[in-house]
Amino acid sequence: ADSRVEIASGDGATSLRLRGLVQADYRYYDAANDPADTFLLRRARLIFEGKFNNLFSYVIQPELAGTIQILDANLNAAITPAFNVRLGKFKTPVGLEQLQSDPVAFFNERSVATNLTPNRDVGLAIHGDVLGKTVNYTVALLNGVPDGGSSSGPDGDSDKSIAARVFATPFANDKDSLLNGLGVGFAVSVGDYGTTAGRTGGYRTDGQQTFFSYDASVVAAGQGLTWSPQAYFYQGPFGILAEYVGSSIEVQRPTFGVRKVENFGYNLSVGYVLTGEDTTYRGVTPKTVFNPAAGTWGAFEIVGRISGLDVDDTVFAGPAGSRLANPNTSATQVTAYGLGLNWFLSRSVRANFNLFQNKFELAPGAAPAADALIADDETTFITRVQLAF
Amino acid sequence: ADSRVEIASGDGATSLRLRGLVQADYRYYDAANDPADTFLLRRARLIFEGKFNNLFSYVIQPELAGTIQILDANLNAAITPAFNVRLGKFKTPVGLEQLQSDPVAFFNERSVATNLTPNRDVGLAIHGDVLGKTVNYTVALLNGVPDGGSSSGPDGDSDKSIAARVFATPFANDKDSLLNGLGVGFAVSVGDYGTTAGRTGGYRTDGQQTFFSYDASVVAAGQGLTWSPQAYFYQGPFGILAEYVGSSIEVQRPTFGVRKVENFGYNLSVGYVLTGEDTTYRGVTPKTVFNPAAGTWGAFEIVGRISGLDVDDTVFAGPAGSRLANPNTSATQVTAYGLGLNWFLSRSVRANFNLFQNKFELAPGAAPAADALIADDETTFITRVQLAF
Amino acid sequence: ADSRVEIASGDGATSLRLRGLVQADYRYYDAANDPADTFLLRRARLIFEGKFNNLFSYVIQPELAGTIQILDANLNAAITPAFNVRLGKFKTPVGLEQLQSDPVAFFNERSVATNLTPNRDVGLAIHGDVLGKTVNYTVALLNGVPDGGSSSGPDGDSDKSIAARVFATPFANDKDSLLNGLGVGFAVSVGDYGTTAGRTGGYRTDGQQTFFSYDASVVAAGQGLTWSPQAYFYQGPFGILAEYVGSSIEVQRPTFGVRKVENFGYNLSVGYVLTGEDTTYRGVTPKTVFNPAAGTWGAFEIVGRISGLDVDDTVFAGPAGSRLANPNTSATQVTAYGLGLNWFLSRSVRANFNLFQNKFELAPGAAPAADALIADDETTFITRVQLAF
Repeated sequence: ADSRVEIASGDGATSLRLRGLVQADYRYYDAANDPADTFLLRRARLIFEGKFNNLFSYVIQPELAGTIQILDANLNAAITPAFNVRLGKFKTPVGLEQLQSDPVAFFNERSVATNLTPNRDVGLAIHGDVLGKTVNYTVALLNGVPDGGSSSGPDGDSDKSIAARVFATPFANDKDSLLNGLGVGFAVSVGDYGTTAGRTGGYRTDGQQTFFSYDASVVAAGQGLTWSPQAYFYQGPFGILAEYVGSSIEVQRPTFGVRKVENFGYNLSVGYVLTGEDTTYRGVTPKTVFNPAAGTWGAFEIVGRISGLDVDDTVFAGPAGSRLANPNTSATQVTAYGLGLNWFLSRSVRANFNLFQNKFELAPGAAPAADALIADDETTFITRVQLAF
Repeated sequence: ADSRVEIASGDGATSLRLRGLVQADYRYYDAANDPADTFLLRRARLIFEGKFNNLFSYVIQPELAGTIQILDANLNAAITPAFNVRLGKFKTPVGLEQLQSDPVAFFNERSVATNLTPNRDVGLAIHGDVLGKTVNYTVALLNGVPDGGSSSGPDGDSDKSIAARVFATPFANDKDSLLNGLGVGFAVSVGDYGTTAGRTGGYRTDGQQTFFSYDASVVAAGQGLTWSPQAYFYQGPFGILAEYVGSSIEVQRPTFGVRKVENFGYNLSVGYVLTGEDTTYRGVTPKTVFNPAAGTWGAFEIVGRISGLDVDDTVFAGPAGSRLANPNTSATQVTAYGLGLNWFLSRSVRANFNLFQNKFELAPGAAPAADALIADDETTFITRVQLAF
Repeated sequence: ADSRVEIASGDGATSLRLRGLVQADYRYYDAANDPADTFLLRRARLIFEGKFNNLFSYVIQPELAGTIQILDANLNAAITPAFNVRLGKFKTPVGLEQLQSDPVAFFNERSVATNLTPNRDVGLAIHGDVLGKTVNYTVALLNGVPDGGSSSGPDGDSDKSIAARVFATPFANDKDSLLNGLGVGFAVSVGDYGTTAGRTGGYRTDGQQTFFSYDASVVAAGQGLTWSPQAYFYQGPFGILAEYVGSSIEVQRPTFGVRKVENFGYNLSVGYVLTGEDTTYRGVTPKTVFNPAAGTWGAFEIVGRISGLDVDDTVFAGPAGSRLANPNTSATQVTAYGLGLNWFLSRSVRANFNLFQNKFELAPGAAPAADALIADDETTFITRVQLAF
């Protein structure tokens, strides 16, 4: 009854699922210092996802919109439920919202806190479900990417990163428990970095505009550490997702000393399905399908979010020739408010209407030009129609 | 019996068609001022095309040859036959030949008139069939792309474009009418443009060489308007396709005044299937398949075309420092003649042999260098073997 | 029982095979003058491969890792077994190891001799099996690519290349012969080249580092000729693959005379399947599948290789302003030793552990900087986990 396409052997031990994703957005910005309003093909993907021999599974997922690139290309061997090995390119196991599949998230764009978590990287991961499947763990050895970064390799330095995450759903086996949908976890990633590619390329607002970036000459020059306590709770039509992220990195502007920069972010998101369907970390499945002739309209959900990102003031210290970032183009803090209405027309089609307000706090003495992004709060309205099968 | 591959549910309400396109060309140019003769992989595509719930349909089509990019990525909701909504990236509803699927066109390359029509863009379109399916209409709201241009967004300016097209096949329901295969239409697109990306990147000959381009400093600076009366007529093995395109745009060379440039193009193409099969806007299906052992050879079609493009002389006016285009590298007019033989070896395989002559008219006072493309007429022979399933 | 996915018509005359390839590598280099150790997504591909009407077949294969590009996009018409026509983009029929499918080769990376053979090109090929299928021949007309080069067109010059290859497996029909698995052949490619794109972009070590490249100003300026005697012999679990490649090209540093450069390479590789399975040019199919619970582990193979590449000393002759290559960054010869263990976990999953040592010989008078790649031998350990279905 929906768009899923799977080719499988009779015993189900081998199968290939052909998947696709299209996100067609419209972005409206309210102010002259923001970019032009625009239609945008945000994501377009063709995906092969399969398994065979009841042991191996794989994903090959290229991104065809924006920067064309391979996102996921990995092989997983499920030796036992508690001991899986994954190799190739996949998401670094740190951020809770980062790890959630984009098409099923509450909002069109991930929160500003996700700027601080590493994205996709190449390496290997040991992972599995233990303690009656109430605890999931992952330990990964990776090239290491900076905050918000992705890479397919090769790495710029020989130092590798370790990322580890434990996530518990202690009441997952008790269907009657009020806390059945509760999950809490903690993740950490640590590694040494030594090149320009080792520090973040920039942090973006909900409207996807860069509000902070280092001076182009800044290089990573030491340890980077990311840590994140995280939790979600889903109960019937109500859901809440929360995470806190701390990210520190040693960086250097050449000929000046190494400085340690400590940034922090948080994200608190809630959703409520007006039409009563369950909401989960894997999304909402509408009870009815959009069909005006039959008088059915699908499901509707309202969502809200507050998130923030605080950049270490040390980056703005010193004269223009030695400071790590320019206070006239980079803000020291953003607080972002989001409100949205999601319309699930079918299992595969969804329309989102998101309103974001991003409030900037400037560094002491900052005097941004009138047309600088950070000269004024950013108010953005982002609509999306999404096909995901 | 052919290469089409479709995976469908039992009731046909949901299906995925896996499609592909390969075009392997050889281009021969007769003169020293033309580019080198070459084999060329013209197009290579993997395509997912599907529908589900008898309501939604989609296309995800990347181009893998030449500039790798996403071409189509859109979702269509067929609320009623008369009221469809399409969202994402798709072809701007203006040019008749532009809208025709490339693999089924009379010639290897679209006519010079198609230089004046916008290509693919991002936005939304309302479209449908009305009046007993004898009239098809489309109204689209789009970022706006220049003549011959394509975009996936983001837009360079906040102004959006509107494109609208009405196309009537008044005798489509009367199978016995001599005019059963007649279609006439009119299309228009209008929008404001304000950046370099808002004016055309260049116009090309049948041999795909740029014979006109603006000075690199020229920017769009006002309204762009494209309009096109268009028609086709298919009757048994005979077909004719005709369109006229007018395109005007306000452009500016910085520090000089805004000038309005008005260009015009036309295309008159005919085809005749020697082996008697019907020809249509959707192509030719051969009655037999190439099979030397069985003595069957498929279908053969001869095609002819005359087309032209006239660039406003105003673009060449003034001294070198202020004129909009260089008369020594850009021609003011091209008239293009094409002759071809198409061989349909099967429903999916086709070989084309096309001869093109492009005659240039130079701007007053032009003195192109001997090796300039426009110094001499361009004569090109383009063969193609095509797989399209 | 494995990951192969094919959609076929009832009579098998039409089918589409959906294939994929993922190679997840780790590269360790032992010395400071080598690049950083790294995880690397070496290859990631989605492939459509099909046939229809018992006559036509095709491949559409993009590479999604590293440089995103179309690798194969071609259509083959099997008029008779002895007379096939292939059109589009495919591998130039010269190098034995180049022509072998990468996922089934003995080693993770092809030998240094393969640097001297042309890779994928656009054009047409006549090929077939004759003399009771004991001889395979290919004659191709192509744009022409330099040593190790690939192209989708357009060509930089009008001269085309011819490549021809004959490969005999004289005892292929005698299953009881000890020489059943013997193949011997000879290939040649010749063409005129006239641009920078006509000479090699560089030669790489087993560790995929460039140890030889021309001065950036060097252009091809005359005939390029590649020739290669080649052979393999597979007998039960034992296999050997050998080829010799000679490559000459006329090149020029502008304002200096045309010089003919003659380079030579060789490759001798052997493999032995410890678990007794047959090894062939098309790889190894393990008798058992990795399944620790059942106590089965798949197949294991040990492999060895010695290969070399000798660059003509003439390229280093003359003062810095006129010589063709810099002796301080390019070596005149490399001898490469490889040892490996391959683990076939299933028909589709394979893990390789390869140790390579590349010994450089420098040009007379060379004085490379301490951090130059060629300042010291390159020792590399490359592991790979591969999914290929």
